[in-house]
Amino acid sequence: MQRMGMVIGIAAEHIAEYKRLHAGVWPGVLERIHRSHIRNYSIFLREPENLLFGYWEYHGRDFEADMAAIAADPETQRWWRLCGPCQVPLASRQPGEHWASMASVFHVD
Amino acid sequence: MQRMGMVIGIAAEHIAEYKRLHAGVWPGVLERIHRSHIRNYSIFLREPENLLFGYWEYHGRDFEADMAAIAADPETQRWWRLCGPCQVPLASRQPGEHWASMASVFHVD
Repeated sequence: MQRMGMVIGIAAEHIAEYKRLHAGVWPGVLERIHRSHIRNYSIFLREPENLLFGYWEYHGRDFEADMAAIAADPETQRWWRLCGPCQVPLASRQPGEHWASMASVFHVD
Repeated sequence: MQRMGMVIGIAAEHIAEYKRLHAGVWPGVLERIHRSHIRNYSIFLREPENLLFGYWEYHGRDFEADMAAIAADPETQRWWRLCGPCQVPLASRQPGEHWASMASVFHVD
C-alpha cells in the first residue's frame, strides 16, 4: 500500500461551492475511485491560503492504469466539470498533473 | 477517531536537514506520539512551494491534554529544537498553533 499526498489551490469565490459538492459526492464517482483501489481518502482545506490537501492510500498495482480508468469514466468527467472551475492547479505541477503530487518525508503507524 | 490535516512552511535551506531528521525520528518521540493516541501519521513535502502537510488519525478522547503531554516531554522538546528552525509557521495560524490546522471537506473509506 502506498500513502499519497497531493495539493491544489482553490478559488476563494468557489470555496462554498466546493464544500457543498464534497458534502455529497456522487455514488458513481466514489465507486469508480474504489474500483481504482483508493482507500481512506480525505481532502482538507486551508484558508486564507486557499489550499486543498488530498491524502489517500493506494492499494492497487498499476497506478497509471487505475488513474486512467477514473479519467475515462463519463460520470467522473461530469463531476470534474463541476469541481474543476473551483480549483487552481499549482503552476509548478508536472505535465499531466491536475493535483500536484507531494513527497513523503515521514510515516509512523 | 478523528482525521486531522495540518500545514506549515519549510525553509528551502533546511529541507535536506528536515528530511534527514525525519528518516530517523527518535524512538522516544514516536513513543510519546503513540501514547497521545496518534496513529497513521504521515508528513508530505511540496517543492518549490516549500510546504509540509501533516495527516494523522487521532484516537483519543482529550486532544488538548494529549497534545500538552507531548509538549511537556523533554525528549520531544529536544527534538523540536532541531525541527523548529527548519519550519516556517504560517502567519495566519491560530494563537498557540505551530502547524496550522486544516478543515476536513471530504472523506471516503
